[in-house]
Order: sequence, then structure tokens, then C-alpha cells
Amino acid sequence: MDATRGVDAGRGWTMAGAGAVPGTDRRVLLRAAAGLGLTLPFLLPGMAAAQDEHGDDGGGHGEAATGEHTEAPAANAPVQPFQRYDPRLAPVEAGSKAFSLVARDVVQYVAEDVACAAWCFDDTIPGRAFRVVEGDTVDITFRVDAGANAHHSLDFHSAKTPPDKSFRTIMPGEELEWSFVAKHPGAFMYHCGTPQILMHIGAGMYGAMIVDPREGWPEAQELVFVQSDFYLKDGENGVKVPDYERMLGAGAMDYVVFNGHANQYVENPIEVKAGEPVRIFVVNAGPNVWSSFHVVGTVFDRVCVNANPKNALFGLQSVTIGPGDSAAVEFTLDEPGLYPAVNHAFGHAAHGAVALLQAE
Amino acid sequence: MDATRGVDAGRGWTMAGAGAVPGTDRRVLLRAAAGLGLTLPFLLPGMAAAQDEHGDDGGGHGEAATGEHTEAPAANAPVQPFQRYDPRLAPVEAGSKAFSLVARDVVQYVAEDVACAAWCFDDTIPGRAFRVVEGDTVDITFRVDAGANAHHSLDFHSAKTPPDKSFRTIMPGEELEWSFVAKHPGAFMYHCGTPQILMHIGAGMYGAMIVDPREGWPEAQELVFVQSDFYLKDGENGVKVPDYERMLGAGAMDYVVFNGHANQYVENPIEVKAGEPVRIFVVNAGPNVWSSFHVVGTVFDRVCVNANPKNALFGLQSVTIGPGDSAAVEFTLDEPGLYPAVNHAFGHAAHGAVALLQAE
Amino acid sequence: MDATRGVDAGRGWTMAGAGAVPGTDRRVLLRAAAGLGLTLPFLLPGMAAAQDEHGDDGGGHGEAATGEHTEAPAANAPVQPFQRYDPRLAPVEAGSKAFSLVARDVVQYVAEDVACAAWCFDDTIPGRAFRVVEGDTVDITFRVDAGANAHHSLDFHSAKTPPDKSFRTIMPGEELEWSFVAKHPGAFMYHCGTPQILMHIGAGMYGAMIVDPREGWPEAQELVFVQSDFYLKDGENGVKVPDYERMLGAGAMDYVVFNGHANQYVENPIEVKAGEPVRIFVVNAGPNVWSSFHVVGTVFDRVCVNANPKNALFGLQSVTIGPGDSAAVEFTLDEPGLYPAVNHAFGHAAHGAVALLQAE
Repeated sequence: MDATRGVDAGRGWTMAGAGAVPGTDRRVLLRAAAGLGLTLPFLLPGMAAAQDEHGDDGGGHGEAATGEHTEAPAANAPVQPFQRYDPRLAPVEAGSKAFSLVARDVVQYVAEDVACAAWCFDDTIPGRAFRVVEGDTVDITFRVDAGANAHHSLDFHSAKTPPDKSFRTIMPGEELEWSFVAKHPGAFMYHCGTPQILMHIGAGMYGAMIVDPREGWPEAQELVFVQSDFYLKDGENGVKVPDYERMLGAGAMDYVVFNGHANQYVENPIEVKAGEPVRIFVVNAGPNVWSSFHVVGTVFDRVCVNANPKNALFGLQSVTIGPGDSAAVEFTLDEPGLYPAVNHAFGHAAHGAVALLQAE
Repeated sequence: MDATRGVDAGRGWTMAGAGAVPGTDRRVLLRAAAGLGLTLPFLLPGMAAAQDEHGDDGGGHGEAATGEHTEAPAANAPVQPFQRYDPRLAPVEAGSKAFSLVARDVVQYVAEDVACAAWCFDDTIPGRAFRVVEGDTVDITFRVDAGANAHHSLDFHSAKTPPDKSFRTIMPGEELEWSFVAKHPGAFMYHCGTPQILMHIGAGMYGAMIVDPREGWPEAQELVFVQSDFYLKDGENGVKVPDYERMLGAGAMDYVVFNGHANQYVENPIEVKAGEPVRIFVVNAGPNVWSSFHVVGTVFDRVCVNANPKNALFGLQSVTIGPGDSAAVEFTLDEPGLYPAVNHAFGHAAHGAVALLQAE
Repeated sequence: MDATRGVDAGRGWTMAGAGAVPGTDRRVLLRAAAGLGLTLPFLLPGMAAAQDEHGDDGGGHGEAATGEHTEAPAANAPVQPFQRYDPRLAPVEAGSKAFSLVARDVVQYVAEDVACAAWCFDDTIPGRAFRVVEGDTVDITFRVDAGANAHHSLDFHSAKTPPDKSFRTIMPGEELEWSFVAKHPGAFMYHCGTPQILMHIGAGMYGAMIVDPREGWPEAQELVFVQSDFYLKDGENGVKVPDYERMLGAGAMDYVVFNGHANQYVENPIEVKAGEPVRIFVVNAGPNVWSSFHVVGTVFDRVCVNANPKNALFGLQSVTIGPGDSAAVEFTLDEPGLYPAVNHAFGHAAHGAVALLQAE
């Protein structure tokens, strides 16, 4: 594992890594990498610091990636007071859309009294839910805040586009504009795709984009749930920081959450109308754990895999959703009451993947 | 995490847990909660031990749920001698059904020579497999044995009903009657939904209800397999007790089993006729691990997701089934022989998720 | 756990394990077992070491399978220099096929500079990808190399056949011939099914067989990806050996790979043509971890579950594939660029489950 393996001059692209090692002029390298459209997954063992020209990256681990040089969010970023993430989705009309996103460092509450150093889009975890219609042209302006402590990128699963161009890594203070046509209906994850991708996702950089089918959806009360898992260790000043070792498998997650905060909709249930259809777009951002999504007290009349109406299943109790995947579940709560939505892998529910639907 | 957060007077319901804080009169809160039909998932950190009247359980963990104060089955309950769970399913006619279930403490053998303190329905793990026809009215009488060491509830995935009413927690000696119409065909999990739900499921409180489609199934030799995972630690007198820490992720499972006992159908294979169709209703009760269900030596002619014939897949080698989910697999064993059914995640099979089908 | 439980004279078959008890003449039992076509999963606690002729392996564990006496590949087998596994699939015509496979001990590179003692078919991990057409008669000749340190078997998921006959375990130097008709189209796993199956799969004994539908596939650039997970510990002379304890759950995997070697297609991307359809047959060999297969920068136009065109899903971002299962994913890379294919469970991608598609 040496410092040079990351450079393949013949191909004209460099395998990033970036700067996790003290003493390296990372900024220079980083800019070079960004100039090369560098968003590839440099995930080989010991390759955290692949762009280090001085070769002092520790490296040489006998085993798989240890991540000891991985960049991470800083515990001294601004603390965001907890705000319940509004799960309700408004309808949208067909037509061109323009979205601006900013990547920034923040300290977020991922559970009650648990402040965590994070990276995120537009200051929330998950980032805003975007909604467009199949066939829409979508103009993206992506910026990394000048005060960010790392470089980032932005990968929309809804876009067919060369990743090394549209999803490329940019530096703090830089901006990237590009466009795509949303060709496939569905609920799609978006996320940072900059190595270590595992860290960038594990630190909070994801959200959902809903692409409505051209013919629209049957009317329903619509919600979006982004499930994600957090792995934390102690940082400074009582702030937690992401624990890359445990993301890699050295231990179980601390939290599995819907919309960025453990049990937020237990404390403050989501109000819906009994007897009228509900549709939840469930996106699993991971980075690691699967979901077996279930709503207690009802049966899903229809589940659309990837939230595409062409992929309909009927009468389901639960649906398996992998990391980086999604489904739309449709159901009616026949009578008033409190209906918990859960990840039915109850070891996950017990870590926060529970929401209450209050049907009135 | 303070004692008051669980109480939201404005809403008129209480978020149990309650007792996690020393000095709270949890008994009062608990009974109030039960009176309010309280079966919500009180899964916040440190929320446990709801039924402890003696108040000394610490709580206040900084991290995610640690479960150290979680109520658990007792090792001194009556020991049930091992009895092979009969996997064969008899057919059923349409019409109203009435089922009575009792929750009780027992010590069960979950593997050879491994006695485990458990909670269960009607003295077996899994509980009896119920079978009804789409459109049937189902009358449920649920009782918690007067000698039980914990309160319990009963959640049927096959029912559309307000959980805070029909699935509410009742105390030892209490009984609850309610009805529902089985509107969706499928193989549905039923289970205790009382917090810590993870512990109640992990302790053995689940079973399967088959709802036949109105038009019936093609004739076949029918079996039911309930997969579940066990996490054990040493208790008194050589009896194991459930290990909540490991259910939460502190380590791998000890056993993954079909119908409550590791490898029971290896020791005593299931006899089927070669050349005639077999249908297995596979319900994954979890609490945690997924299944990749497979039968060695055959290919599934048809797999119905959730055991609903509307969701047919063809020619599968395996099918992924999440916790709290199900499938029906149909196949023929063309020639006499021994055909192992397994969870093809072989780390799970190696922990007991193997059954032999002996085709004659 | 005593030596006699494995023998059920009434049924006329023996449950291997055999060697788990000190003082047993396991060699005799083993040969008898092999003679009986013994390929059943002998996965009960303490049942292992079937081929150990020296008899000193203790056994009698109170808990679930610990594997401490499990046979394993030897670190002193011949070292295979690393060779990139060619993922491209050639088309095939309908008609009878005859395939010969040899099980052999080798030392393989499963990641850069990581040599691992392995068992495999035809000296590669995965073994060769076989391709036939629905309805073809397939003649199999399976041999265990005379120098092999263990007995083996060969289970084709594509075959409907009695496992205790066609998939039976044979000894080093022995050969087994049998035939089947490939009745179901799909991408099917093949693997060694000899206990401890978990070890035999974990040591590298698997591959893919593609059965084309009779009507053929739409034209595409076709690839095969076999995902698998490796668990390693230090062996002799700097060679790693499989770690059965961790396969069983005592820790996370070291590598998750496509076609046997971590990140091999990052170092050497797979060239495809932009604007023309690509089809990847993805087989998950496990033994343990699921895949959420995804290609960055595109959307799957069609995904066929089990690679059977009858099971089509449309417009997916990712697809969940369990161990022992498969899917075919179809997509087009609209513009030239580098498109990473990943297991979107990024803790897995970070352990090597990344491949680059270079579209020109």
C-alpha cells in the first residue's frame, strides 16, 4: 500500500483520498484532484490518505480498511437546536426545477440530548426532500460552504449522468452547476459521494428526491421517511463524533432513525386522517442497515418498489428496503388511534426507528 | 431523560417507560398506561422496567438503549420437555373463527440441551399457527396468565385495527376480547407488542396466522416455518435467559431456528411426497436477522411475497424475508431423497436454521 | 452431544459430525458417510472436523457451533499469482453441455497483498461462470483433487435433483458424474455443500451458472459479478486463513468483494460502450452478507429477480440480493465516464465491494 498506487497517469485520473495526514499540503492536492473530476471510491485498505505525496500514511494494515486517517466532522461546528423534521410532502407541478444545495458542517441532535458533529446538506439531516415530475429538467447548484472542513460532492440516484463529471468533488467555497432530466419515477436517495463515502454518509450527508410518475399518484396524505444509522463516539465538549471503526463493522449502530432523530415522532406524533389513504415514501440512506418497514395496526394495500408504480406488490405487512434503496407504501388507518411505524428488525426499532402516526 | 417527558397530558395518553427514573411511582403510571390502552413502543434510551414496582433501576444512560434494567423471563418457570413443533398445516373452511391465546412464562428447549427462560403464547415457541380465510371474522380472546411475571399484548399483523385499543397491554390475570375481519390474504406474524418489544419478541412471543385467499390455494402439502433468532446468557440452575444486550447488537445471535428449536427437523426430518407440490409458509419473526430462504435440490416454481398470490415471482433459488415479514414458497421434490431447507445466509444456517425434507 | 446422536439406524443414514468426539474412529464413520451420499448439513453444536484422522478435537460445547475444530484450508497450498477475474460473459447456443470441475486447495489473493488459504473450483474464486440455455441437458463431472486436504461436494442451485445423491460428498481423488436438465432460467449459485458448509463457502467454493431463457435475452454487454464476504486470520508464512469464528458472527467481515478480489475493477476498470445496454448478472455467494447492488450515475431500466425475465422490476436505483440469491440488472451508461458499481451498504463497499465501469 504505497502513496503512488493512487496515481494512474496512463488513465489521466487520480485516486483521491485527500489529506488525512498531517504535514501534507493537502489543499494543493485536493484542488488537483477536484480538477480531475475526482469522485471515485478510494476504498482500498489503507487508502484513506492516497493523495498524500509524502507517503507517511501509516498504511500497511494487514487487514481491511481501518479508517484511522479518515477525515471527520468537527465537534466545534455550530450547534443546531433540535427541530422536528417535517415529514409531510407537498404536491408539485410538472416543469423545470432549480435546486440549490449547500454542504456545511454542523452539530446536530440525532437523539434527545445527543449532539453529534455532522456534515449535511442545507443544515438538516436528512437534507430537504425535493420533488419533481418524471420528465422535468432539474438544474442543480451545489456549493460547499467556505468554512467547511472537508470537500464534498452530490450524487443524485435519480440522475443518469457521468459521476466523474456531475458528482465530482468540490472544495470548500466552490460551486458546481449541472442539469439532468428526471427520467424514472421513484423515491431516490441523494448523498455525498466523496471518499470515504462511508464516512460522508455516516456523518449525515443524504436526503430524498421524489420523482412523481407523469400520470401522477392517487390522492393521499403523503409523507417522506429517510431511515439512517448512526455510529458515535465521544468528541470534545460533550459532543459526539462519527465512529468510522464501527461504521466499518467493529460494533453495532447507536441509532437507527427516521428523518435524522431517534424517536422524534414518538415525542411528537404525525397527524393523519383516519379513513383516508396515506402514502409514505421510505428511503433508506444507510449507510449500513436494512429496513423491514412496517406500520402497526394496518396492512399496506400497495407497496411500490423504488416508489415506481410499475413495481406494485399488494397486501404486505412489511417491506425490505436496502441501504440506497426505497419503496412507497400505501395504506389506510381505518379508525382513529395511534399507529407506530417501525423498522420491524426490532433491534433497530429499539435504537430509534419508531414513529407514531396519530389518526384522528 | 426525565420522568415527565413520557406524559403528554394534552394528548391524553402516556408514554410508558416511566419507571426508568428512580423515585417515580411507576406502579401508578403503569396502571394508568395500561388503562389507556398503552402498547406504544417506549423505546427511548433508559426506558424500561415498566412493571417494576420496587423502583430501583437506575436509568439515565447517556447512550442508546442499554437494556440493563429490562424485565425478562424468569429461569424458575416450569420447564417444558422438548416437543417437536409439527410444521404441517391442515386446510380450513371459510367462516367465523374464535381463537383464545394465553401468554405464560415457561422454560423451553431452544436447542438440544439448551433450556431457556421464555415468554410465549400457549406454551410453545412459536405459538400455534392459526388459519383463516380472507373475509373471515376473527374473534380474539387474549389472556395473560395470572402467574406471569410481566404484562403483555398481542399484535396480529393480519388485522387492521387501532393498536392502542386492540393490541393494548394487559396485566397478569387480565383478559382482552376483540374482533377483526381478515381482509388481506397472506402469512402474517403475530407477536407481543409490549415494550421492550425487542425483549418480548426475543423471549419467544410470536407465531403465524395464515389467511387463505378467498379463491383458495392450489392443492399442496402445506407447512409453516417460523424463523427466529435467540440471544442467550447464563441464568440460574443451568437455565439460559434472554440476553437483551446482544439483541441490541452487542454480539451475534446464538441460534437461528425454524419453529423454535435449532435443527429439530434435522434430527427428525419432515416427510413429504416426492413428485407432489409442497408449499411452505415462511414467517420471519426476528427479532433481528433476515432470511434468505432456500431449499437444496429444488427451485421454487412460485414464490408469493407475503404469501399473497397477487405477488408472484417465478423460478427462484432463494427469497429474502425480513423480520416481521413472510413469503410462501412452492416447489416439487422430483425424486425421493433428503432435501435441506436452510437460511442460505450460512452463518445463520450454522446456528440452527436447517430443516430436512425427506421425500419418499 | 454424544457420538451416537448422529446415527439413526432406523433411517439408514448417518449424521456426520462424526469426529466431534474424542476417541471415535472418525475415518471409518466418514467413509461410511461418504458412501451413503452424505452431504447433509451437520451443523449441530460440536459437529465438525469430519476428516480429521487424528481424533484429538475435544468437542462437547455447551453453546452453539463454535467451529474451533472445523477443518480449514491449509496455508501451505500452492500460491496463485493474482489474476483479474474476467467479468465478461460470452453468449452460448442451446444444446447439451458437459462441464468438468475440480476442487483443489490453493492460496489466493483476495485483496492486494492479502494471500489467503482457500478451497476452490478450478483454481479460481469464484469458479468459472457456466452458461447454458433453458432446457439444456447438463452433464457434470466433479472431482476432488487427490492432494486436497478435505472432502467436498458440488451443489448447483440450477438443478432439481436429490442432494443426497447428486450433491454428495466425495473424498480426495474421487470423481462423481451426474446430469440434470436446466429447467428454470436464471443466474444460479453453485457451491460446495459439505459441512461445515459455512467454512466451505467461506473458503471460496462457489461460482455462478447462467441459464438463459429459451427465448434469449435482448442484446447487451453482459457481465457476471459474484459477491462474497471473507473472514480472515493470520496463518503461517504471512498467509491468511479463513476465520470460522468470525464467519459465525464473532466479528465483521474483512472483505466484501466482486469476483473474488477486493477492488480489482477499481485498479483495472471494466470497459463498456456508452449508449449501449449493459446487463450484469449479480450472484451473491455470501456466506453471510446481503447486497444492495447499485451503479452510480445510472438507473436500472429493468431488474429481473433471480435473473428470470418473468420477474421484472423497472426503474430501480438498487436491488437487495441475499446470500444464495441473484438478480440481473440492465442499464445504459448514457455518456462516457467512470461509473462505480457498489454494494450500497457502504460498510460493505468500504471493504472492497466496488467496481468501476469505464464507458467510452
